[in-house]
Amino acid sequence: MTNQFLKKGSLIAISIIAFAILAGHSVGSQGREKAAERSNFGIAIHGGAGVIVRQNLTPELEQEYRTKLTEAISAGYDVLRNNGKSLDAVEAAIRILEDSPLFNAGKGAVFTHEGTIELDASVMDGQTLKAGAIASVKHVKNPIGLARLVMERSPHVMLVGDGAEAFAKEQGITVVSQEYFFTEKRWKQLQEILEKEKKARDSSDRKNLNALPSEEIDGRHGTVGCVALDKFGNLAAGTSTGGMTNKRFGRVGDSPIIGAGTYANNATCALSATGDGEYFIRAAVGHDVSALIEYRGLSVQAAADAVIAKVGALGGSGGVIAIDKEGRIAMSYNSPGMYRAYIDGAGKAVVKIFKE
Amino acid sequence: MTNQFLKKGSLIAISIIAFAILAGHSVGSQGREKAAERSNFGIAIHGGAGVIVRQNLTPELEQEYRTKLTEAISAGYDVLRNNGKSLDAVEAAIRILEDSPLFNAGKGAVFTHEGTIELDASVMDGQTLKAGAIASVKHVKNPIGLARLVMERSPHVMLVGDGAEAFAKEQGITVVSQEYFFTEKRWKQLQEILEKEKKARDSSDRKNLNALPSEEIDGRHGTVGCVALDKFGNLAAGTSTGGMTNKRFGRVGDSPIIGAGTYANNATCALSATGDGEYFIRAAVGHDVSALIEYRGLSVQAAADAVIAKVGALGGSGGVIAIDKEGRIAMSYNSPGMYRAYIDGAGKAVVKIFKE
Repeated sequence: MTNQFLKKGSLIAISIIAFAILAGHSVGSQGREKAAERSNFGIAIHGGAGVIVRQNLTPELEQEYRTKLTEAISAGYDVLRNNGKSLDAVEAAIRILEDSPLFNAGKGAVFTHEGTIELDASVMDGQTLKAGAIASVKHVKNPIGLARLVMERSPHVMLVGDGAEAFAKEQGITVVSQEYFFTEKRWKQLQEILEKEKKARDSSDRKNLNALPSEEIDGRHGTVGCVALDKFGNLAAGTSTGGMTNKRFGRVGDSPIIGAGTYANNATCALSATGDGEYFIRAAVGHDVSALIEYRGLSVQAAADAVIAKVGALGGSGGVIAIDKEGRIAMSYNSPGMYRAYIDGAGKAVVKIFKE
Repeated sequence: MTNQFLKKGSLIAISIIAFAILAGHSVGSQGREKAAERSNFGIAIHGGAGVIVRQNLTPELEQEYRTKLTEAISAGYDVLRNNGKSLDAVEAAIRILEDSPLFNAGKGAVFTHEGTIELDASVMDGQTLKAGAIASVKHVKNPIGLARLVMERSPHVMLVGDGAEAFAKEQGITVVSQEYFFTEKRWKQLQEILEKEKKARDSSDRKNLNALPSEEIDGRHGTVGCVALDKFGNLAAGTSTGGMTNKRFGRVGDSPIIGAGTYANNATCALSATGDGEYFIRAAVGHDVSALIEYRGLSVQAAADAVIAKVGALGGSGGVIAIDKEGRIAMSYNSPGMYRAYIDGAGKAVVKIFKE
């Protein structure tokens, strides 16, 4: 009897909670409709999350980042404004970030333990759920372009290593020597980490040197990504990275993993992630944000916040950008900063770097 | 005023629906508790889905499959019965399937277009959400063992290609020459497909030869996998494959993709998939089944059926095995058959191959 009563009581309590949630949701839905009226397309980019704090950036370098982020977001936005496809906008924006030495992707990629460059990227089309991904390629100037070719000109989703490079050559896209990717900054970052590793090895019995918390090492990782909604209601997402400084053993992070670092589904949202890739894979970040929107009715911002909290609970640091089917943009991160930009309702680029 | 009233009315209606759903869910939970009393641990395996029909199997070959599936499920079950961990049960069962020439994993792996062997595998621990995956390795006798070492002895989740092999050697696990993987059956399958490709190339303008529907080609793919719940309430899942006969360009399917071919989460279920990997990646099969259980309250069978239906709608064929936190097993597939086995309530192995 008591048990019966408790159950009934708890059901009523649950019902009240459900009522409250659904009431909140209902108001949220109204807000969405208004947002859809304001803007029928949209775009956001990120240039990596990490220990990005004001004292680590000179005003000159900060300006360089702001200029390049503005250039990239504007290029993507122009595609959309001129009735282009979200996939084209995503690729246009990411190519600019890949060609810049500022970001850990393409030209500015970080070095592996062996002093080589190994690039990962992926792209997903929210209309068809088609996707393309490449991992561990060493000579492709624009990995995002190769990922798109995998999606559009192969029956596959993911190609890795030498095989992916053979496909790149067959498709005739630009291949470069490893020297193309050399930047003094990244080389120094590798040397610093190798030095720290050596010290750690000498001074302690620390088992897992690669597991040094990312907070200890600035510039250890980073990624670029873009999400877009075009005027035809189609979402797309893309991500590109050099991975983690000092990575070994053909390590692949979340960037080329569909459902983790990249996801797009016209029914929910498009998303691109950046951060400690291992945690983002384990948390299936991209698909989880989508599932919370689809199955729980969360807003894109609430879903992104919830999943970044899960990543944090696992011990991971980083962030995501996402855009939903009504063009609402979410940016969520638990790191000190994230290079990011979007275009506001007035068509103006808004660039942010630090926590605000 | 009317608007206000409508809003209030619809909220009350939603609340009643929510109450009904939650009440139903509560009843479902009771059913689950009973199931948990019946069996506090469980295990299931698969040996691949595809065009597996009676007329393609001689009685002798069918018996060979049944014997090996029984051996594998029994080995995993023994681990659980003797208070072992679900991860150990998963690895034990998969090693037996990998060592058999019958299945497309380890010893029985299919050939790539170039006549080489490239193996993928992954494993996930539902308690910690830790995971390990390897792709495109050519000399590792038991890829599932390497995936587990990536999870337990590296800070990474995924290693690919030569790097993964270097890690394997560093860890001292068994490496073999490519000759170890040679089987007459797989070699003939490759030659048949190459011949069909040649004919198709000669006789038609078919653009995408690799996109031949899998129904046209028996033995084109296949995978082995295992899911288990141990007496401590911990779920684990693992998957291992040789990929697709005639695969090119370092193609990687869903087997090593956490959230697609493999997923485990103590809060929901453990899952292993087999089939047209590209579709399983795009549908984020593993995480979607988990999300439908967690966010929508579906049973593991209903969630598996729903996601296999989505894969089918995209054009993909294959199946999944899954086990939930109360030990309930689901097997769902849209192909003509799937090699599969589980242990029933009486501790007896149940092996199935064809549609029933």
